[in-house]
Amino acid sequence: MGNNQPSIIALLHGPDRAGLVADVARWIFDNGGNILHADQHRDDVKNIFFQRLEWTPGQGSLAEQAAAFKDYVQGLGMDVDIGLSSEQLQVAVMVSKITHCFHDILLRWKAGELACNIACVISNHATLKEEVAHYGLPFHTIPVSKANKTEAEAQQIALLKDYGVQLVLMARYMQILSKPFLDTVGCPVINIHHSFLPAFAGAKPYHQAHARGVKLIGATAHYATEILDEGPIICQSVASVSHRDSVSHLIRKGRDLEKIVFAQATRCHLERRILVYGNKTVIFD
Amino acid sequence: MGNNQPSIIALLHGPDRAGLVADVARWIFDNGGNILHADQHRDDVKNIFFQRLEWTPGQGSLAEQAAAFKDYVQGLGMDVDIGLSSEQLQVAVMVSKITHCFHDILLRWKAGELACNIACVISNHATLKEEVAHYGLPFHTIPVSKANKTEAEAQQIALLKDYGVQLVLMARYMQILSKPFLDTVGCPVINIHHSFLPAFAGAKPYHQAHARGVKLIGATAHYATEILDEGPIICQSVASVSHRDSVSHLIRKGRDLEKIVFAQATRCHLERRILVYGNKTVIFD
Amino acid sequence: MGNNQPSIIALLHGPDRAGLVADVARWIFDNGGNILHADQHRDDVKNIFFQRLEWTPGQGSLAEQAAAFKDYVQGLGMDVDIGLSSEQLQVAVMVSKITHCFHDILLRWKAGELACNIACVISNHATLKEEVAHYGLPFHTIPVSKANKTEAEAQQIALLKDYGVQLVLMARYMQILSKPFLDTVGCPVINIHHSFLPAFAGAKPYHQAHARGVKLIGATAHYATEILDEGPIICQSVASVSHRDSVSHLIRKGRDLEKIVFAQATRCHLERRILVYGNKTVIFD
Amino acid sequence: MGNNQPSIIALLHGPDRAGLVADVARWIFDNGGNILHADQHRDDVKNIFFQRLEWTPGQGSLAEQAAAFKDYVQGLGMDVDIGLSSEQLQVAVMVSKITHCFHDILLRWKAGELACNIACVISNHATLKEEVAHYGLPFHTIPVSKANKTEAEAQQIALLKDYGVQLVLMARYMQILSKPFLDTVGCPVINIHHSFLPAFAGAKPYHQAHARGVKLIGATAHYATEILDEGPIICQSVASVSHRDSVSHLIRKGRDLEKIVFAQATRCHLERRILVYGNKTVIFD
Repeated sequence: MGNNQPSIIALLHGPDRAGLVADVARWIFDNGGNILHADQHRDDVKNIFFQRLEWTPGQGSLAEQAAAFKDYVQGLGMDVDIGLSSEQLQVAVMVSKITHCFHDILLRWKAGELACNIACVISNHATLKEEVAHYGLPFHTIPVSKANKTEAEAQQIALLKDYGVQLVLMARYMQILSKPFLDTVGCPVINIHHSFLPAFAGAKPYHQAHARGVKLIGATAHYATEILDEGPIICQSVASVSHRDSVSHLIRKGRDLEKIVFAQATRCHLERRILVYGNKTVIFD
Repeated sequence: MGNNQPSIIALLHGPDRAGLVADVARWIFDNGGNILHADQHRDDVKNIFFQRLEWTPGQGSLAEQAAAFKDYVQGLGMDVDIGLSSEQLQVAVMVSKITHCFHDILLRWKAGELACNIACVISNHATLKEEVAHYGLPFHTIPVSKANKTEAEAQQIALLKDYGVQLVLMARYMQILSKPFLDTVGCPVINIHHSFLPAFAGAKPYHQAHARGVKLIGATAHYATEILDEGPIICQSVASVSHRDSVSHLIRKGRDLEKIVFAQATRCHLERRILVYGNKTVIFD
Repeated sequence: MGNNQPSIIALLHGPDRAGLVADVARWIFDNGGNILHADQHRDDVKNIFFQRLEWTPGQGSLAEQAAAFKDYVQGLGMDVDIGLSSEQLQVAVMVSKITHCFHDILLRWKAGELACNIACVISNHATLKEEVAHYGLPFHTIPVSKANKTEAEAQQIALLKDYGVQLVLMARYMQILSKPFLDTVGCPVINIHHSFLPAFAGAKPYHQAHARGVKLIGATAHYATEILDEGPIICQSVASVSHRDSVSHLIRKGRDLEKIVFAQATRCHLERRILVYGNKTVIFD
Repeated sequence: MGNNQPSIIALLHGPDRAGLVADVARWIFDNGGNILHADQHRDDVKNIFFQRLEWTPGQGSLAEQAAAFKDYVQGLGMDVDIGLSSEQLQVAVMVSKITHCFHDILLRWKAGELACNIACVISNHATLKEEVAHYGLPFHTIPVSKANKTEAEAQQIALLKDYGVQLVLMARYMQILSKPFLDTVGCPVINIHHSFLPAFAGAKPYHQAHARGVKLIGATAHYATEILDEGPIICQSVASVSHRDSVSHLIRKGRDLEKIVFAQATRCHLERRILVYGNKTVIFD
């Protein structure tokens, strides 16, 4: 950001040992690279080292240096995930009829806030057809019912594969993705849930919140996993509510939370700031 | 606050009907009173009217006018709770070994932030004996074990009755109050729980929060009821945390939340701003 | 909200005296009305009474009862501003090239979050022509330069009068409105300023904030007055920033603040929750 | 925190160049050290590199390795500030009659939240004499008036030197420290100002905030410099206020902000997380 030279971004983690920071930094320097950002974390309990590195390679191609670095770091016994600033992720947006997260993501994308390529929009309803066209994007309607769910998901998977999708954004897509879908999709899926998880998982969280009489409502962006609303949490936020707020007020106030939290999680993912570890996230911001 | 004339504060609720606001206001005017504050709320779904009124009686004694008003309003079919600004509640603080909420409440009280009379401090440990003496308050140690719990609670109840206690503050008192205790105590009990309820009820909420990998921690002040951590919520607040925060960091950050939320709930109660309704609170602030 | 019967909303203020609440409530009851919401405030220092009342008139037309109430209340020596839930304000949006507040307001309006009629969009650039057409609204480009400012403002005023505009929203309209414009426009103008006023008034507030090294950035919605960024404040919000945030990060983070604060101020105004008093606002929420 | 081995903490900054991270990490590794935390920042505009390193030296004494590292890093053209986890800073607290920040800091210190040695408390009033004795600390009353200010400050400086004070905390010390004092004191001075600077610098910020009608109040902890309220900002926070809040409410709400912000700044300083750079701070948290 602000630096226009092409860069390599690596997310590493593995067992910590003395000299690791020096070795990795030395490798980059010896290969002509210049580190722009380095951020690390150490899990003192489990002795695991986490690092996000961003550097410009002084010589050779981005792709070659990235591949060589991957070999080197794996040789040190670390897991590594590498991206190039010159390559933007292919993203699919899944949406139902609720539009605030959908518009929010697309407007941010058009404004240059989200560095990715939005490949297509998939919905179980035709409602947003014209809006998607206005954004200049392909739109696919795949109706989903109890009866056709398996088939519908197969169609979705086929589409996502066709577009080479590398990230799925569930922008208030009001269907639960099945375990087979998540096993097959082959890329991360970010969901926005309208509560401060783990409170009020499942259906109608604002109704649950109203019934319990909480003084805060929240939103949580997380990676979807086979257990509903239990995946690794990326971002959360809350807003104050009072006895004056009916369920419809909670829904209105919650929309602002959902938009911001969802966009923030998406941006962090696209900028390769998130390292998933167990059922948690390390977020280098 | 800012007005030094003695005032009457009434918290009303009951079935709404046209003319209610006018009738009640007219009664006060006709009896020579001057309304300082009036705040109302209407549950549109259940058609219930809630009101907090504060006024200075122009004539007669505070107590007489308060009693007459009570009769009048009950005659309208409303529940009413009345307090006089000239009468401060008798408060007992219960605490174990963790001191931040204890000191916080007592320092605010000494600074004049909490208009009440702190009658005594009760603990299951002798740890805070000297500190309590420094604040000039009676201190009672009542050890609690599985074996003596019933007896210990009977001693607590006897003490609270002796002091004429009208509000119990559980300032991180690390014992669960039994249903018989709560049935017998005869006054509200405010507890501070160190999570954003309903998430992480029960023991060790910061450990639970760390294990789940949430990005927010919270604190909740609520009235204690027989079902642990399920009483009417008064105040809640949260703070951001990240992967860098160990459990001990969560505990440190949480202390600030707990102090503020607990003090805020206590102040609202003392200023008679809280109307409990079902398992919820209406807070006139 | 949630109540579909047509209602009258009145914002009153004037010298306080005993019996005022009763008198006003009695008038409404005697005229067959039923109070839905009543919220009041008393400036203890200046002895001024403020009230927002919303009621359904049981008999007669909304307009007639509103007019009669106005007479009554003015007779009590109070200023009053009255609106009918059946009449939506005519609103004009003014915008330059920065689009986030523009889209945000229009999407909220389309989603039914802002009860008004957006009459037109006026810009000093043609950039948003197609976007405005997509929203189905009239678009007027009036270029503004130092040389033609007086004339341009005259054109703007003429347009606003033609459309019967009752509220102007400056959605990051990057021109200063002159005193003659504000004197002539005949309706309130809400501006969004990208700092926590009174800090960083004037040009380039994010650059100012970055230069000062603050740890918070903010946004402020206020009524425009002839003194730049000094009008009555309606809403403010802030977000945390750190040394890692360049000016461009502040601008990105600030956009979310601006959108929310601007929309919140607009909604409060449309719901007639704001009473301007001196250079301050009383907001009944 | 959580690691009980003695460690060295270094704060570096200087011109960035390729290989710097590797060189420094290599030096630590070659000298037997093990890096616990490394956090860096790069000012892209001015090409300056900032780093906070914390490591356990595998061999030799802490002090020797710290000295050798200092030589090494200065040889690279960097400014460096080094501390040992085994050495706690000597701190003086200056206070007037307002006690909330005073008690807050001392209770946190007693609870082990602030790793330092509080050497003494200095006040211009005798009010807190007994409270300071209760905390077991030396107390020095040095009255300050216009007439004796130079002399009073000389006495303060003499005391601070006697105690070997390395950090001065102005816990709502209601006197302006003169330029000569700040030039002579020879250590950083942290002040808490009760507004979100740069808004409402100078006297009576809550009165200023009330007069302006802001919807947020704030607190700012900063290093004191000769220009009042213009030193490098360390931490800031805000809270919402409304038309209902009188100046005395702002003061009450502000106390909580002041306590938290002041303690947070103090903790960051004691943990050597703050690098002052120009009139700004880089805070490695």
